Amino acid sequence: MSTFVFDAYGTLYDVYSVAEATEDAFPGHGETITQVWRLKQLEYTWLRSLMGRYVDFWEVTRESLVYTLDSLGLEYAPKTFDRILDRYLHLSPYPDALAALEALRAQGHTLAILSNGSQEMLDRLVANTGLKQALDAVISVDPSKMFKPSPGAYALVADTLGGTTDDVVFVSCNPFDVCGAKSFGFNVAWIERVPRQMMQDEVRAAAVVGPGTMFRLLRMQMDTLDLGPDFTIDTLTRLTELRTGA
Amino acid sequence: MSTFVFDAYGTLYDVYSVAEATEDAFPGHGETITQVWRLKQLEYTWLRSLMGRYVDFWEVTRESLVYTLDSLGLEYAPKTFDRILDRYLHLSPYPDALAALEALRAQGHTLAILSNGSQEMLDRLVANTGLKQALDAVISVDPSKMFKPSPGAYALVADTLGGTTDDVVFVSCNPFDVCGAKSFGFNVAWIERVPRQMMQDEVRAAAVVGPGTMFRLLRMQMDTLDLGPDFTIDTLTRLTELRTGA
Repeated sequence: MSTFVFDAYGTLYDVYSVAEATEDAFPGHGETITQVWRLKQLEYTWLRSLMGRYVDFWEVTRESLVYTLDSLGLEYAPKTFDRILDRYLHLSPYPDALAALEALRAQGHTLAILSNGSQEMLDRLVANTGLKQALDAVISVDPSKMFKPSPGAYALVADTLGGTTDDVVFVSCNPFDVCGAKSFGFNVAWIERVPRQMMQDEVRAAAVVGPGTMFRLLRMQMDTLDLGPDFTIDTLTRLTELRTGA
Repeated sequence: MSTFVFDAYGTLYDVYSVAEATEDAFPGHGETITQVWRLKQLEYTWLRSLMGRYVDFWEVTRESLVYTLDSLGLEYAPKTFDRILDRYLHLSPYPDALAALEALRAQGHTLAILSNGSQEMLDRLVANTGLKQALDAVISVDPSKMFKPSPGAYALVADTLGGTTDDVVFVSCNPFDVCGAKSFGFNVAWIERVPRQMMQDEVRAAAVVGPGTMFRLLRMQMDTLDLGPDFTIDTLTRLTELRTGA
């Protein structure tokens, strides 16, 4: 039996599900807000980790939303801001998330999340969305005071669940996270949600490459870092078919 | 007298000056290539620093260009690739760069570059562009094996030039670098090349927010990291007017 450890944001949960709230609050700017916010949110995790100025992911998520709205020159009431931020506690699970977790559990595997999210954000998110009972553990990087892809973040899996890196299949949609987990020593499965050909067709079809396409170009193609996944899958339910040797 | 330490890419040198080469090699895609490349280049410095997998900036610049062209589905001959990469050794200095350096030197200040670039990249760039004789030192982060905004990168200034952080005015156009230098303890001047109002006007005027606007939204507005510049200037020649107390 293996331990399957899932990234949360972008992997089990669709971060794009904030888009309705951003468009509702700022008609015509929803797409730009959504993409800039997510791009800056991860930038801030990396910059703060490198500067040794960790704050938790709720604060990073707040700071990056402030940055986004201010850069765009959008004025907002605290209530509007809070309503958008609150979406991070109610993100939509991907349609294949619950079925994949249940099928892996039926095979006897241990299932966990390892996420940049703070413990409170994650606990509320899995409770709000019905995934809580499908997981054995929900692990926040918070005790390491470093975000992914720092090795210290991935080390929390063994600290929490025991076992060795060989036992773990780490599952992420985020290329930087795939590379970080591989660099740490896990077996890694990449959910390729935007295949190369789809990406290229999207670029070719665009008169102007817009914010959503830029996001997918920047963050959804496998990185060129001399690291890569052991497995590439197109849907989470395929995880039951992996032969890992673990 | 103070020590003025300049960031290179984006501050003394216009990284956008690769755009002619990218458009020439891939007509219709130059703008997207230029922006994705620069965005990924810095991402890779952060990710590699965090994973403890440092390679020098020439390699990072190469990797991020491979990523960019592959993600866009653009095929290329090695010669085409090398011609684009070579632009990093011949970037255009900003029109105010040489005049600012000469005016500061006339005031008796010590002048240096501290850059992510490898020593060879930087030495060739300053020699190719006529800034070499205007500088007292060209410092690469390379010996620290970490990129900015790691404190270890900024520490190389004192290692090379002596003095204390109080003596230094660090000058950058890049908000993450402003924050990193401030976090380290330098006096910091930010060249604000895209004022907030100009940014907002650009967004308002765009039917679709394109790659250049996304770049400016993501990387040319002051970050929301509880850190900020001591001085904000609109042109490098204003540096002669600063009263730093140093």
